[in-house]
Amino acid sequence: MSSESSNNANQAISISQNRQTNRQFTLASRPVGAPTTENFNFVTTEIPTPSKGEVLLRTLYLSLDPYMRGRMSDAKSYAEPVNIGEVMIGGVVCRVEESLNDKYQVGDLVVAYTGWQDYALSDGEDLLILPKALTTPSYALGVLGMPGLTAYMGLLDIGQPKAGETVVVAAASGAVGSLVGQIAKLQGCRVIGIAGSEEKCNYVTETLGFDACVNHKDENLAQILAQYCPNGIDVYFENVGGAVFDAVMPLLNASARVPLCGMISQYNATELPSGPDRIGQLMGLLLVKRIKMQGFIVFDDYGHRYDEFSQAMGQWLAEGKIKYREDKIVGLEQAASAFIGLLKGENFGKLVIEVGPKELT
Amino acid sequence: MSSESSNNANQAISISQNRQTNRQFTLASRPVGAPTTENFNFVTTEIPTPSKGEVLLRTLYLSLDPYMRGRMSDAKSYAEPVNIGEVMIGGVVCRVEESLNDKYQVGDLVVAYTGWQDYALSDGEDLLILPKALTTPSYALGVLGMPGLTAYMGLLDIGQPKAGETVVVAAASGAVGSLVGQIAKLQGCRVIGIAGSEEKCNYVTETLGFDACVNHKDENLAQILAQYCPNGIDVYFENVGGAVFDAVMPLLNASARVPLCGMISQYNATELPSGPDRIGQLMGLLLVKRIKMQGFIVFDDYGHRYDEFSQAMGQWLAEGKIKYREDKIVGLEQAASAFIGLLKGENFGKLVIEVGPKELT
Repeated sequence: MSSESSNNANQAISISQNRQTNRQFTLASRPVGAPTTENFNFVTTEIPTPSKGEVLLRTLYLSLDPYMRGRMSDAKSYAEPVNIGEVMIGGVVCRVEESLNDKYQVGDLVVAYTGWQDYALSDGEDLLILPKALTTPSYALGVLGMPGLTAYMGLLDIGQPKAGETVVVAAASGAVGSLVGQIAKLQGCRVIGIAGSEEKCNYVTETLGFDACVNHKDENLAQILAQYCPNGIDVYFENVGGAVFDAVMPLLNASARVPLCGMISQYNATELPSGPDRIGQLMGLLLVKRIKMQGFIVFDDYGHRYDEFSQAMGQWLAEGKIKYREDKIVGLEQAASAFIGLLKGENFGKLVIEVGPKELT
Repeated sequence: MSSESSNNANQAISISQNRQTNRQFTLASRPVGAPTTENFNFVTTEIPTPSKGEVLLRTLYLSLDPYMRGRMSDAKSYAEPVNIGEVMIGGVVCRVEESLNDKYQVGDLVVAYTGWQDYALSDGEDLLILPKALTTPSYALGVLGMPGLTAYMGLLDIGQPKAGETVVVAAASGAVGSLVGQIAKLQGCRVIGIAGSEEKCNYVTETLGFDACVNHKDENLAQILAQYCPNGIDVYFENVGGAVFDAVMPLLNASARVPLCGMISQYNATELPSGPDRIGQLMGLLLVKRIKMQGFIVFDDYGHRYDEFSQAMGQWLAEGKIKYREDKIVGLEQAASAFIGLLKGENFGKLVIEVGPKELT
């Protein structure tokens, strides 16, 4: 933490209520291995003033997602990294506080990508106005937002599950995994989850309706997964990697599809695991079993199909066919520690920071 | 070789001309590492007699292809292996010698999968009658057959190259690779080949018209390939694996496509290479670059689209837009040693054994 930072939530609230300052998490240094609070600065700056055409946004909810770990690194050829000293990026739901842009009215709720801060300016180009009917605005960061679109397109467009097939979902209680499994059930598939605790596994089977769920911390993971998949695996929705993939690999059927959504077990790795080198073994498996493995980044690949997704998911929610759980933490100052916990699997459901309502309204 | 076997071509020819015997290569034992002649038996049996509904086929040309190495193993979950003692499988062009099936006339030329032998029976179900206009029947085993379909579908359906993109093709002078590169040129792509000798590289650039070609035995393979691909690689048609893929991997662009057609460098491997284990590194690359890697087996995945391919390729051949080279070896008794050489890259062009015409007609 820098000398400008504050961990005192009460002080932060009173400052924000005066609307004199804008709290921000900036990137202090690039993490080596797992991020620590030392990698972030929590600073206060002036609230900016909009120019003609701009709007002033006040953050209500901040989405915390595993992909942000990648943006903290400057590894080549990833998406644009956050620079040292810049505000951490991230999707947010904001209220328009001032508007010098005809398209937006004060009081509009919008989805923006202005990151880990109380206030930001926007020229209005990349904002999505939320429908008034959306009674839980934070859903726009989850089941009706990026994680929902990720689950929907990754499963249906890349995974192409057919009724009767076996779909295995890693991180099954998480924002994306929980939706992948429920959508696969709606397609008539047998759905097996993999999650990080007995409590999460119970939620996955009892509340979300998966056919079974394995705790990836179980030392017999591979054997249990094999028992749950007597007909092999046709679609494996990957967002974990590592030992979980090792358990999945021998069960993949001919013509299986593996949408690659994330590799959370690998994000903090500082060196490659010791050998043997199985890169050729994996490619040989994809070859002889005619398997498709495809990485995707939802913004880039499927942003243009948001409406199609939104309509389907909105209807499933309205009909009670999709259940959704948020892990909501109050206070922007909690963002860094909550994010660090997310990478360890400490959240239970979609992690959202409630920045504004309790503090500012 | 077993005690029944014969390496004497003259003797074999005279026997066959008498049409008393049927020479066959059977699988004697499963290879450990590279196959040797010890893994095959060259035997003589009676020429079979067709029953009602059957035809007697006489082999004119036998196709030798790298995939056959896989069929010699009984590794789990590959396509059906050849059993010990069974005739080696393979695609052939045959002449119908006797017919008790109304669909076939004596003298018809057909493509069959009756393997490494002079004669075989067929119930006529899986035969493809060659058009009389096909003046070079062995092309039905190459440019107009399985290798052609493999190149066409792997490149166009999985690779989806766009004009201006960079396509890299391994085994570029081979049956499949030579066609992949030429089809990619017809799509307006920049095409770089990788081949196993200077002579093959010269053929690839000068005769086939690739933009450049690298010798994979060059110790600076990675650097030279990088120089030839200043804009990275958009499609990599993989049929080699190993060190060639290592050179390709860092050059793959965002949204690249990698059709996995073969892994010839790995077929004879008896153990995994030493570490580190890069399986997670590969999956991480596919993820952050949104790459699709997809194995396919042309019979299973694209057999139903043969007509579409045949029409396009036939026209390109007729217009002189596709060049094609055969490496034709005379004498069925040469099949085992020719196949062993194929796995070492000793062939130059599509390897075909001329079984019949010079011996039997």
